[in-house]
Amino acid sequence: MKRNVYLSMKSLEDAKTEFFSRFGMDFRSGSEGIQTEESLGRVTAEPIFARMSTPTYHSAAMDGIAVKAEETYGTTERIPKTLKVGRDALWINTGQAMPEGFNAVIMVEKLHQLDQDHLEIRAPAYPWQNIRKVGEDIVATQLLLPQNHRIRPYDAGAMVAAGVLSLKVWQKPKVVIIPTGSELVHYRRVSDLSQLRKNQIIEYNSLILAGLVRECQAIPVVYDIVPDLEDEIRKTLIRALDSDAHMVLINAGSSAGSKDYTAHIISELGEVLVHGVAMMPGKPTILGIVRGKPVIGNPGYTVSATLSFQQFARPLLHMMQGLPPPKVKTIRVQPSRDLPSKLGVEEFLRVNIGKVGDKTVATPLPRAAGSITTLTRAEGIIRIPALSEGIGQDERAEAELLVDEEEVQNTLVVIGSHDITIDLIGDEMRRKGHNIRISSGNVGSLGGLMALRKETCHLAGSHLLDTETGEYNISYIKRYLKGLKVSVFHLALRDQGLILAKGNPKGIKGLEDLTGKGITFVNRQAGSGTRVLFDYRLGKLGIEPESITGYDHEEFTHMAVAVDVLSGAADCGVGIYAAARALELDFIPLEKEQYDLIIPSSLIESPQVKLLLETIRSQEFKGRVTALGGYDPTKSGEFWQEI
Amino acid sequence: MKRNVYLSMKSLEDAKTEFFSRFGMDFRSGSEGIQTEESLGRVTAEPIFARMSTPTYHSAAMDGIAVKAEETYGTTERIPKTLKVGRDALWINTGQAMPEGFNAVIMVEKLHQLDQDHLEIRAPAYPWQNIRKVGEDIVATQLLLPQNHRIRPYDAGAMVAAGVLSLKVWQKPKVVIIPTGSELVHYRRVSDLSQLRKNQIIEYNSLILAGLVRECQAIPVVYDIVPDLEDEIRKTLIRALDSDAHMVLINAGSSAGSKDYTAHIISELGEVLVHGVAMMPGKPTILGIVRGKPVIGNPGYTVSATLSFQQFARPLLHMMQGLPPPKVKTIRVQPSRDLPSKLGVEEFLRVNIGKVGDKTVATPLPRAAGSITTLTRAEGIIRIPALSEGIGQDERAEAELLVDEEEVQNTLVVIGSHDITIDLIGDEMRRKGHNIRISSGNVGSLGGLMALRKETCHLAGSHLLDTETGEYNISYIKRYLKGLKVSVFHLALRDQGLILAKGNPKGIKGLEDLTGKGITFVNRQAGSGTRVLFDYRLGKLGIEPESITGYDHEEFTHMAVAVDVLSGAADCGVGIYAAARALELDFIPLEKEQYDLIIPSSLIESPQVKLLLETIRSQEFKGRVTALGGYDPTKSGEFWQEI
Repeated sequence: MKRNVYLSMKSLEDAKTEFFSRFGMDFRSGSEGIQTEESLGRVTAEPIFARMSTPTYHSAAMDGIAVKAEETYGTTERIPKTLKVGRDALWINTGQAMPEGFNAVIMVEKLHQLDQDHLEIRAPAYPWQNIRKVGEDIVATQLLLPQNHRIRPYDAGAMVAAGVLSLKVWQKPKVVIIPTGSELVHYRRVSDLSQLRKNQIIEYNSLILAGLVRECQAIPVVYDIVPDLEDEIRKTLIRALDSDAHMVLINAGSSAGSKDYTAHIISELGEVLVHGVAMMPGKPTILGIVRGKPVIGNPGYTVSATLSFQQFARPLLHMMQGLPPPKVKTIRVQPSRDLPSKLGVEEFLRVNIGKVGDKTVATPLPRAAGSITTLTRAEGIIRIPALSEGIGQDERAEAELLVDEEEVQNTLVVIGSHDITIDLIGDEMRRKGHNIRISSGNVGSLGGLMALRKETCHLAGSHLLDTETGEYNISYIKRYLKGLKVSVFHLALRDQGLILAKGNPKGIKGLEDLTGKGITFVNRQAGSGTRVLFDYRLGKLGIEPESITGYDHEEFTHMAVAVDVLSGAADCGVGIYAAARALELDFIPLEKEQYDLIIPSSLIESPQVKLLLETIRSQEFKGRVTALGGYDPTKSGEFWQEI
Repeated sequence: MKRNVYLSMKSLEDAKTEFFSRFGMDFRSGSEGIQTEESLGRVTAEPIFARMSTPTYHSAAMDGIAVKAEETYGTTERIPKTLKVGRDALWINTGQAMPEGFNAVIMVEKLHQLDQDHLEIRAPAYPWQNIRKVGEDIVATQLLLPQNHRIRPYDAGAMVAAGVLSLKVWQKPKVVIIPTGSELVHYRRVSDLSQLRKNQIIEYNSLILAGLVRECQAIPVVYDIVPDLEDEIRKTLIRALDSDAHMVLINAGSSAGSKDYTAHIISELGEVLVHGVAMMPGKPTILGIVRGKPVIGNPGYTVSATLSFQQFARPLLHMMQGLPPPKVKTIRVQPSRDLPSKLGVEEFLRVNIGKVGDKTVATPLPRAAGSITTLTRAEGIIRIPALSEGIGQDERAEAELLVDEEEVQNTLVVIGSHDITIDLIGDEMRRKGHNIRISSGNVGSLGGLMALRKETCHLAGSHLLDTETGEYNISYIKRYLKGLKVSVFHLALRDQGLILAKGNPKGIKGLEDLTGKGITFVNRQAGSGTRVLFDYRLGKLGIEPESITGYDHEEFTHMAVAVDVLSGAADCGVGIYAAARALELDFIPLEKEQYDLIIPSSLIESPQVKLLLETIRSQEFKGRVTALGGYDPTKSGEFWQEI
């Protein structure tokens, strides 16, 4: 059955059809017998019929007395009847077995106690009244659970009640994960990850894939890393196929070579059904079948590997257990800006989602397939169809949720100039037990004001210096947010300055030195408060931007600037002290600038915003901010102005 | 701190407030350190900051050549530049580390190969173009995950990528479950459950509670059954409190006595906060606190124990792990009939839910708190508020879903005369991999026609004999379903007759013997096809119903009739052969009756109904029906008439 088929790129839908149809709707992992007490979450591989009835004996359904119904016949209000306890009537509690020879229960409320031993009744009992009869709940032979049913706690209880102490369930599929790539190093093999050699990459895709496999109630078996050698990969795949694995995932290294081996080896041993899927990320997916087992070549980039798994491996792992593919929850969103997309490829765009007023706003995260934080930070994924060139900001889109919908409701969207203290606010609120997320977008201070104007955020972080008045934010708000009533609260004063390599090897002493030969600079983007401040200082000193090498090299965050300095991409950059300190870099302070939160006045009374203000006024929060260094949170949470 | 407080019954909301407020929003199980690779599904007990940056080195973001940007300056379309491979340019693949001294990548698409060693470029490169820089994804010190965050597969990956190989998470709460009750027997202790002695009850509540605990990501510790002795219960509770358990559940036996011990002992050792909750089932719940640990006295009836757990234990177990209480999914439903409810008590009514046309219809299941199948069979729960006397069939209600909403969409509602073969249809469809449930309500054939008329079911099962014409169903449909176009399909012919105790000890030979002295009978309810048939046969023989003892003793299913005979509640009943055979009873056939499925013609083309018809026509299905005995499925699935 060896066929050397190299297929050209398929659309996602075609790829799925091609792949899944080869296995069929009744493709299963095989059944196994287990004890009912271990059956929680497992899926029945057979219909479950009751082996015995329950209740197993007749019992009282009420507190009262057990009687013989026939002896009560003829009793009326006008012809009451006296019963002797111990002979005609026996006291009985709910749940107790009916005594031999008695066939009805009269509720205690209907009794009239004459004396210790005698009771009066004023109505007859009919046979079997107020009695839970044998089999009232479950009758032997009845169908308790159909097959392909996932067992819940009370399903297990019902089985035991019905005498079913063991059953057949579908096996948890075993999935072998083979990490390949000569550059990969298992994280357990390096004592200090920061001391990795150049060209070494920590292998963590297998950890993610193993987790995704576990989420499918399947069992991951992670093999050792295989170098990019065709023979080694082939040998390892054969070992996996020889094992009791139900599926094999080969996770390509990031080098192009290893991917080609995978397709080649699969086609040599079996059949490649799909090589290349028109999805992004996830394009280099390989779907194959060898000896009836699905073999998937997962792309190397983390996001690609994850999305490819969700599209192809996950449905199959559910099917193997007799379960429908998990339903993905979606939410209708409005993009905060245009989302262009490449025609011909279905794009999976990770987005932050928050509910601002009536709108559920989605803001795209970076598209990089290697950026794992685009998954950890995302609340959802917008799928842009292959035949679309993108989604305009006035259109609506469905986003697949990566968090509970409730979390989206509880997400505070903070857009503008990013500051580490924003992360601390979110963490501090969660620490206290509030179920709130902060979703922060870094678009600079001016971008934050624009977002407030477009109503795509709850609040904005801003530190825009008015170079005429020396005042922060107010004049900008007046200019850009005309007609919108906002309140300004202080968050912190923070040290802005020059971030320099450790030890300041180039001997930079201030802005004047930036024009020096051999000095490369890294800037912040236009519209950011830091940039405004920097340009203002340059202007005061009469320094021409053109004279600074790297003035046009823009980064979007303080940390990115610091990283450029750390990595040698630049000798010097502009940013806050906290960023320099975090990476243990040198720092020359230029200014104590004012960082404020700008909040539409209409939101001030909302529970989330109230909680946020309460949090930034708390001593715990101020203490944590002070500990960062370079911050003065004395006025944190103080109301400044309403505009 | 011992207080002997016996509190009177509280509303559910008051009970929750009273209980939860004693622990506070930051009530946690305590933290523990774990390896990141074991962190899936766990909840962070600390904010997670990146320990290192990633990528860990500069690498190519594109396939192409690495160059020194400065050497390309001045290049234009008109002044192209030639680069010597190996000196000015080095071939590089996506992901590969940038070679020392090179600081930009030019994409392969922009290159013009002159010969083996020389390339031409027609535009300059700027520094760091097409390079994934150190820290582009993660920057050391950045907040990766806030605390109280449940870890997903890619969160774990991000932690490893950021050098975080271990972390603090909240402990999985340990919950001790103490089953109490002298009548209880652990199912593992009896070799043959059907040989239980009278007054013995199989203990399976602890299995259900353990499963519910596990669903909260907590760890159940089930103790041995404790008899109803105050000292024993006290000793066991103290042992549980002395252990490292975070919570104790005492599951009352079904006798009234044990419950009283529980409250008394809790108040002796600590404090009873709530004794009795105005919810049904679940009323006898006890909520206490001893040495700061929650101690809950769960009611004995299975459904009560389950519902009480969900209201009180579950939110607390989530809170202990820093998680919000799980959001219960609800669906808007229309009751298929009036749902009266007791004023002053919040009722949890288990319902079958199915989507019929535009309506999502909820049909109540029995209210019995001891009936576990009311949980296993339910798709949802309607909560009827304490201040309501019920919900009318013209009102709408919210039902909490016990299954995925998709399952409700895929539920075929079959109402009418119940037959075992209906269960088989559902199981057979699932066996083939279809995600379909059948929800069957037993209201008799006539009830089924009424349900069709009220549009509260998809199809009805019916076997109504027209005693004038000898024809089944047609005349009833014409009379009761005027104006509704329905199609009638055969399901099976089945043997109706007298169900008798094994060995026929009373020597009953036919209907004539039912009037005999000492013979007790059990009937089916008026409106059922079986009742019509029975009355018809009695009429033909001139037998007066009043002359039959037990004629008014009505049951709603064949199985219930058979159980009455099995248990001695009656000597004889009327029903189908399959029911007699299932319980190994004797049987005297009276009639081969025709059992049909009546389907609104408008639904015939719906995928679910098409699948159902396909299924009942299949050889596999007919084989399974034949194997039941007493059925002739030859014409199963045959279209008979449209009316």
